[in-house]
Amino acid sequence: MIDCLRKYLVEFIGTFFLVFTIGMTAAFGGEGCIAPLAIGAVLMVMVYAGGYISGGHYNPAVSLAAAMRRALEWKQWFFYTFSQIIGACCAALVVNLLSGGLDAPAKMSFSLETIFVAEFLVTFALCYVVLQTATSKKTEGNSYYGLAIGSTVMVGAFAVGNICMGAFNPAVALSALVTGTVCCSCVVWITISANMLGGLCAALVYRCINTDV
Amino acid sequence: MIDCLRKYLVEFIGTFFLVFTIGMTAAFGGEGCIAPLAIGAVLMVMVYAGGYISGGHYNPAVSLAAAMRRALEWKQWFFYTFSQIIGACCAALVVNLLSGGLDAPAKMSFSLETIFVAEFLVTFALCYVVLQTATSKKTEGNSYYGLAIGSTVMVGAFAVGNICMGAFNPAVALSALVTGTVCCSCVVWITISANMLGGLCAALVYRCINTDV
Amino acid sequence: MIDCLRKYLVEFIGTFFLVFTIGMTAAFGGEGCIAPLAIGAVLMVMVYAGGYISGGHYNPAVSLAAAMRRALEWKQWFFYTFSQIIGACCAALVVNLLSGGLDAPAKMSFSLETIFVAEFLVTFALCYVVLQTATSKKTEGNSYYGLAIGSTVMVGAFAVGNICMGAFNPAVALSALVTGTVCCSCVVWITISANMLGGLCAALVYRCINTDV
Amino acid sequence: MIDCLRKYLVEFIGTFFLVFTIGMTAAFGGEGCIAPLAIGAVLMVMVYAGGYISGGHYNPAVSLAAAMRRALEWKQWFFYTFSQIIGACCAALVVNLLSGGLDAPAKMSFSLETIFVAEFLVTFALCYVVLQTATSKKTEGNSYYGLAIGSTVMVGAFAVGNICMGAFNPAVALSALVTGTVCCSCVVWITISANMLGGLCAALVYRCINTDV
Repeated sequence: MIDCLRKYLVEFIGTFFLVFTIGMTAAFGGEGCIAPLAIGAVLMVMVYAGGYISGGHYNPAVSLAAAMRRALEWKQWFFYTFSQIIGACCAALVVNLLSGGLDAPAKMSFSLETIFVAEFLVTFALCYVVLQTATSKKTEGNSYYGLAIGSTVMVGAFAVGNICMGAFNPAVALSALVTGTVCCSCVVWITISANMLGGLCAALVYRCINTDV
Repeated sequence: MIDCLRKYLVEFIGTFFLVFTIGMTAAFGGEGCIAPLAIGAVLMVMVYAGGYISGGHYNPAVSLAAAMRRALEWKQWFFYTFSQIIGACCAALVVNLLSGGLDAPAKMSFSLETIFVAEFLVTFALCYVVLQTATSKKTEGNSYYGLAIGSTVMVGAFAVGNICMGAFNPAVALSALVTGTVCCSCVVWITISANMLGGLCAALVYRCINTDV
Repeated sequence: MIDCLRKYLVEFIGTFFLVFTIGMTAAFGGEGCIAPLAIGAVLMVMVYAGGYISGGHYNPAVSLAAAMRRALEWKQWFFYTFSQIIGACCAALVVNLLSGGLDAPAKMSFSLETIFVAEFLVTFALCYVVLQTATSKKTEGNSYYGLAIGSTVMVGAFAVGNICMGAFNPAVALSALVTGTVCCSCVVWITISANMLGGLCAALVYRCINTDV
Repeated sequence: MIDCLRKYLVEFIGTFFLVFTIGMTAAFGGEGCIAPLAIGAVLMVMVYAGGYISGGHYNPAVSLAAAMRRALEWKQWFFYTFSQIIGACCAALVVNLLSGGLDAPAKMSFSLETIFVAEFLVTFALCYVVLQTATSKKTEGNSYYGLAIGSTVMVGAFAVGNICMGAFNPAVALSALVTGTVCCSCVVWITISANMLGGLCAALVYRCINTDV
């Protein structure tokens, strides 16, 4: 029981700093490579710091993929997701406080299908990388899993950050409702569906290409 | 047999996301350090994710060097190359779909000799780094091979990205015919020849400086 | 005794190059991602170089957290802090010499509460990452601790570098009195208090989530 | 004998690509973070690729420090330095060929003393990091030594790249005579002296803080 609370606290802290960094760099980071670099790095850091306790998911889609691959009990999935969403929303509130509120973005110029495909592809890549580098027996004890996971999000933000939310994470997508950095709430639900589907497909692919499950 | 299909799937996925990132950052990434940073990082990520299954080549020139160094059966080289080209072309189609088509670049101002030398040198460096860090017995079990391999492509894109295609990879060069981001097709064939020659020379150098072959 | 002097020398060298890099990039680095990138990298480098001798703190708040987690004797905390402050001040003098003196910044537009919260949150994250990746038995022998620690400071500089000093380190904050890169000295004391409180909270959280203390 | 030739070939290749990257990013890289990022990364890559054969110095000052720390025979120092200088000059010739010649820089506005101090400090840091992370028994088998070494040069280029050559390497300094990217040759000799003194001091400090020599 106390062991589980430890894990939830780690997931809370990690998701808090992930969304804190996303919000603060959106508020002050300006253009260019700053936001993707900072977001990828903070995820890497938190994965390394918390990975040996909770697995370092900080993302309900990743937790879903981990549960399907049996690296997480299904029962725990709800508590993980809950901790992640609470962490994300607390961070969004702190960002609002420190920055004095973020501007709502202009209406998106891309279709919902485009947003769905972009979010799906990158979340698939993220969950595929997590399963391959952090849960496979054949890569156990490596020192690169955090670097690989964080860099995937950085790459995603560079590749599709201009045509979708660039969340790749349902908890991050929900936190945009708190900070108001999304033009319409249906984008949030499209994003969350794409993220969950991405996690699901990554878990299926993992089972195809690995013999230890 | 099923083991081989696993490897081809991993090569397909890795090359897909490599070319997806190249295309999307070409379409939206703008100037400066974004495209090289993203491309180097996605290669690193995919090498770490798939390395323990297929070797993580994602590049026919690298597969050639690996086959010459006997880290890959010659028979497999054809299937690897085929999976990589299919992955690259699928990604190019998705990029066309999401971005609405890329602009053809202006006519290149550099001679074909310059393009050949630049592509040759960087592909040589890439294959040399792959063989030394990912196939040598003396560096087995290290955690840096993906970082080294991805960074080599980033360095190459910074160093010669302005004077050649910056592919360093025959599958990437071919995918430019699909997206139309090449001024004339002869540049593609020059690039592919330079890449293959680079892989070949790297394998010869590897045999000179290592005693385990 | 001689062993202790070795540790103090390593702490001196590391803090010297940390503050040297901060000062020189402030003087010449210009806008954008250069200063955070360079500062995160120099901390990473010095943590890797000196970690096996002194622990690689280079930061009185980190030393405080390490002492609370019993990775450092309390008696040593004073000598560590002293070495760090001397290193920081020497570096500030060298920066003044090489750059011909830095400009004082414009008056800060953010309230002292905002500065306190921003410095507290990032220093908490930094000390949390140090304790989790560099002092826990469960992550012993990893190769990523320096990367994680340095990247945390880079992330912090990107996230809150515009609304506070971005020191996350009492020795760095004090060195700003030498280079004159702070608008009023009360900001320095606010920063130092926030840093120490961050280190203290991180040590408490570490004891909650780890069973080996 | 054949073993020695292997090492010289590896030193030649590594220094070649180091100077090739320096020259090409100087010719085409433009402003900002591109050149330091690329140069740090190429050094990292070559250290990882060749480290297990030759030690991965690519720098006469590092070879000097390694020889003083007895990680290299004194006799070898001459051959290492010779291979490095040949590699650097070949790369400079290739850069001239590909880029059509680089512009000579404007006359430096900093005094020779400033140049000496800046080159000395960064080369000291570089050699200190090499000895601590790549030659000490206590850090044997780590996966971070290349990252630490390459990042030190990146940090140095960010910190003092505007006030000196930013070579931190006698072979690189000499290659500037070939490409003509130095305003007067006395800067080259000042730089080389500062580099060698930096390596010498780093070796002395290493002997102070380590018990295994």
